Amino acid sequence: MSDKPIALDAMGGDHAPHEVVAGAVHAVRERGLSVVLVGPPRVLYEALEDHRATKEVPIVRADEALAMDEGALASLRRPRSSIAIACHLVRQGNASAAVSAGSTAGIVATGRLRLKGLPGVLRPAIAVALPTLPKPTLLLDAGANADAKPEMLVQFAHLGAAYAETAFSIGKPRVGLLTIGGEAEKGNKLTRRAHELLTASPALHFVGNVEGHDLLTGLADVIVTDGFTGNVALKTMEGAVQYAFTELRNTVNAHRAARLGALMQRGALRDLQRRLDSEAHGGAVLLGLTGTVVIAHGSSRAAGISAACQLAADLEKGGVVTRIGERVASTHRTHRLW
Amino acid sequence: MSDKPIALDAMGGDHAPHEVVAGAVHAVRERGLSVVLVGPPRVLYEALEDHRATKEVPIVRADEALAMDEGALASLRRPRSSIAIACHLVRQGNASAAVSAGSTAGIVATGRLRLKGLPGVLRPAIAVALPTLPKPTLLLDAGANADAKPEMLVQFAHLGAAYAETAFSIGKPRVGLLTIGGEAEKGNKLTRRAHELLTASPALHFVGNVEGHDLLTGLADVIVTDGFTGNVALKTMEGAVQYAFTELRNTVNAHRAARLGALMQRGALRDLQRRLDSEAHGGAVLLGLTGTVVIAHGSSRAAGISAACQLAADLEKGGVVTRIGERVASTHRTHRLW
Repeated sequence: MSDKPIALDAMGGDHAPHEVVAGAVHAVRERGLSVVLVGPPRVLYEALEDHRATKEVPIVRADEALAMDEGALASLRRPRSSIAIACHLVRQGNASAAVSAGSTAGIVATGRLRLKGLPGVLRPAIAVALPTLPKPTLLLDAGANADAKPEMLVQFAHLGAAYAETAFSIGKPRVGLLTIGGEAEKGNKLTRRAHELLTASPALHFVGNVEGHDLLTGLADVIVTDGFTGNVALKTMEGAVQYAFTELRNTVNAHRAARLGALMQRGALRDLQRRLDSEAHGGAVLLGLTGTVVIAHGSSRAAGISAACQLAADLEKGGVVTRIGERVASTHRTHRLW
Repeated sequence: MSDKPIALDAMGGDHAPHEVVAGAVHAVRERGLSVVLVGPPRVLYEALEDHRATKEVPIVRADEALAMDEGALASLRRPRSSIAIACHLVRQGNASAAVSAGSTAGIVATGRLRLKGLPGVLRPAIAVALPTLPKPTLLLDAGANADAKPEMLVQFAHLGAAYAETAFSIGKPRVGLLTIGGEAEKGNKLTRRAHELLTASPALHFVGNVEGHDLLTGLADVIVTDGFTGNVALKTMEGAVQYAFTELRNTVNAHRAARLGALMQRGALRDLQRRLDSEAHGGAVLLGLTGTVVIAHGSSRAAGISAACQLAADLEKGGVVTRIGERVASTHRTHRLW
């Protein structure tokens, strides 16, 4: 749909810039994507030379960067940071989407500031793909809006549905509302009202309330919640999986150290843990702006960066921004008819 | 402190009344506790006869029961249900505490209706003990108040601190606030204000914000949140642990079926999963009323019921209700001084 490059923030993430540069090279060579690196030219040029890739990956200059521990305020003070320039490239039409492994708060604030909101979209939201099978479940908002209104949750459903259609080819994404009981009257004020609004939305396939234990069962393709609850749930999930593995290792080692110790080291456990980590967190996407911003995990190495570039390209190729615009516009028409 | 019996709702739970009766017999014989069973006399008498325990466990008559799928409203219509009578015995001073494995919503509504609130306590809350080491972490509110005010979160801290002092002998319980970032200004409106109030509470050892991944790391002894977030977090944790185990079984079976299959069946995994389940959910306690109500897991068998009776006895012996009353009264004095 577009042969514009992905704008990749070379300075975001725990392993920037070297792993980011390696990820860019991988995305270009192995995935056939078009990528520009945004950051300090000299450093990036030298890093590209290590891969003999100076002619394959162009560089756009940005001399500042947001540190991983800098939040939303820093993005205001740094109009020339690498993530700000990456967003600027998207806004000017010189890049199709932006990718960064920097701090989520900084990326969200910069995205809001440098990319316009889509007409009719109340607030952008962060969508995270949870590792359900056969297809991922999208949870949103995962943290962009700590205090949300019921109308926003309906919009998050449209943002998520557009993402699911685009990236996972789901024809009619099932939308669930995260709350604390199956019946419509269960929940808090926010979810009770959101339930009413979702039920009255003909353009959504609303399947009702879901609970915390449904997040990983594939009961819905899109699960909507406010950014506070979504962020708590996501981090709780991460912590619980980590806990389960640690406890399991302790239990098994205590029981059958000789037989299992080596095996556990070698293989299955670590593979699985890595898969959960990257699948759950590699794919966060800031949706609802005039361009797509993929938020790679802060600890991403080259493979994670390359996968994030692929996700950005897939969403862009599927026209996710256009789809969101159409969906939101259709809800406005519907509302006007009432 | 009290030789009054525990009032045990014989009709609550998936395996009532037989496993509840067996649990009562276990609590009396193996733990030396005093227990009365509340329910239909004839059925309970026959069940006790199977254990030759008709002389060891008295019965108090209740001919109705709340079904597991009945919620808060049913408790209004059933003043003679087994859980209502159990609470009534506590209120009249004929029992020290109540225990039920019935539906949480029904127990909370009945407790509120049949037991008076403690003076000064805004709302009772559900505390759940999470399986951290060396001592459990208490999470509250786990679902009694879907819409909470900042002042309530401060009270939940006192309820939890009194529980931790009483049941786990923690001298100065560390209190954390569940939110979505470490800094004071992170979170939603509720948690930002609650952070201010907790910081200004001299009677609490407030250690600051904690996040979802801290729930199982033992960073705090008491973690406070609103009942909506707490319930979502608890169920998310449950689902994530379940997910991790299932995935792990699949992965390991796929890799080394012959060597590991039998072992997995036999032992470590299932033991651990059972421990997580019972420790995380066997110990929910409704705090803030004039009597303590322990909410055993709905799927409890005899051992879980007996453990719930022990928890009720421990809390009562340690004077948890008096401690809560003193703590809340002290905060009122403090507030008046300002």
